[in-house]
Amino acid sequence: MKIGFIGLGVMGAPMARHLLEAGHEVRVFTRTRRKAEELLAKGAVWSDSASGAARGVDLVCTMVGYPEDVEAVYFGDEGVFASVREGTVCIDFTTSAPALARRIARRAEELGAAAVDAPVSGGDKGAREASLSIMAGAEPEVFERARPVLDLVGGNVVLQGPPGSGQTAKLCNQIAIASNMLGVCEALVFAQAGGLNPDTVLESICGGAAGSWSLTNLAPRMLAEDLDPGFYVKHFIKDMRLALEAAWEEGLDLPGLQLALRRYRELEEKGGGDLGTQALIRVYGT
Amino acid sequence: MKIGFIGLGVMGAPMARHLLEAGHEVRVFTRTRRKAEELLAKGAVWSDSASGAARGVDLVCTMVGYPEDVEAVYFGDEGVFASVREGTVCIDFTTSAPALARRIARRAEELGAAAVDAPVSGGDKGAREASLSIMAGAEPEVFERARPVLDLVGGNVVLQGPPGSGQTAKLCNQIAIASNMLGVCEALVFAQAGGLNPDTVLESICGGAAGSWSLTNLAPRMLAEDLDPGFYVKHFIKDMRLALEAAWEEGLDLPGLQLALRRYRELEEKGGGDLGTQALIRVYGT
Repeated sequence: MKIGFIGLGVMGAPMARHLLEAGHEVRVFTRTRRKAEELLAKGAVWSDSASGAARGVDLVCTMVGYPEDVEAVYFGDEGVFASVREGTVCIDFTTSAPALARRIARRAEELGAAAVDAPVSGGDKGAREASLSIMAGAEPEVFERARPVLDLVGGNVVLQGPPGSGQTAKLCNQIAIASNMLGVCEALVFAQAGGLNPDTVLESICGGAAGSWSLTNLAPRMLAEDLDPGFYVKHFIKDMRLALEAAWEEGLDLPGLQLALRRYRELEEKGGGDLGTQALIRVYGT
Repeated sequence: MKIGFIGLGVMGAPMARHLLEAGHEVRVFTRTRRKAEELLAKGAVWSDSASGAARGVDLVCTMVGYPEDVEAVYFGDEGVFASVREGTVCIDFTTSAPALARRIARRAEELGAAAVDAPVSGGDKGAREASLSIMAGAEPEVFERARPVLDLVGGNVVLQGPPGSGQTAKLCNQIAIASNMLGVCEALVFAQAGGLNPDTVLESICGGAAGSWSLTNLAPRMLAEDLDPGFYVKHFIKDMRLALEAAWEEGLDLPGLQLALRRYRELEEKGGGDLGTQALIRVYGT
């Protein structure tokens, strides 16, 4: 299959590599050409724009940063919709706004193409190992056409509903994480203030009802003061904002999410935007 | 060994049974005698008071409801300290206040006895299967004397530090759960408001970075409207209050815990105190 892949960051690059290694013809575009070198050496073909990467292909994949990047990549003068041909399936892996995903799907349909929103979770490790959880929003027949490619980059591929539903599901994921991060930090600072060894506390609590991925994986990094990004604070803030905006549209009150966003913004204001999400512990004064 | 066991609720009864089945001589007292019948049939001996159950034994176990019950059971006219002999080890399994645990340990020492605070997690299932996580606070030599009995009822027995430390560790456990419950509820209501099938969302998010014991075990019960208590709302509120009181003493600000307590109190005011903690979803208007 001919595939255009746009956005070769820590997530996009290994995902594009899986497609290349599966024998597909992959045309790539990314803002910083240097990030494409490894893929070009493996046989990918360079394009000078998103519209170039999308021209004449069977399938377009996008994995960029923010909703405004997604909008530019699809609707911009040199965007996907400037060149996409009838029958092409566009898959956006970026975590973005459900409303934007629906808008992309409508425009794709007008052009005789089709779109899938397919945000992922599992981080750069999941991208490298092709074990990502992929939450897809699409019409069932469009999903079936995208599925072979989704299966090449993901381990747990689930159709959540019509266009936009993948984004909504991904925001559910971020909402669940947001409040839990408060609990993880608060448990640790409480342990420290009470004179306990927090590592010993983790031995007692990780395996039970307080257990979570964050407690097992991020609490030890907090204690080791390893604040390197697995997932960036600035990206998490973007996701929490998207979720709150969508919640407001639905008239939903999500106080845990609001509180988590407030605390993460404090962290960002202190210069923590490029740290990993476990850096939230800093806001608690440790 | 001669053991006195005080408090035979859903947790205490199976724990006392393990001691009996291991061949120990167990004397029991609980407020409602009916709850002791099964153990009496298996060879336990009835006492009419806590002091009666504590008289002349090598070890006293207590598993009651609230800190005020713990206080009465130890310091009351017919309490443990009215009869306990030199050398007895007192183990309190109740989730209670760290400061009260320290007071019990001091009084026990004055009487030539010793005390261990040993709150547990793992629920009635953990109690029946002797797989509880036990967080112990005691001097190391006292812990070693209590250890054979702790191992009979627990699966993950960890000494957290001097008296009171077990309670502090257990409160860490509850703090981590508290905020996470907000995240679990908010993810589900966001999914519903967005028109998704929340069960399908759980398929995507339970195995990844949003994953937690509560998401796996309690979210499906929320969706099935099964609000039966695994762990009572009223007891969780007690624990969150204990944690907040201890935090205030340390000058710690725990906004996630405060928010969770506020939401759980709303639930209690609506008559939800005797439901399971998963009933928090009701506060979100579903």
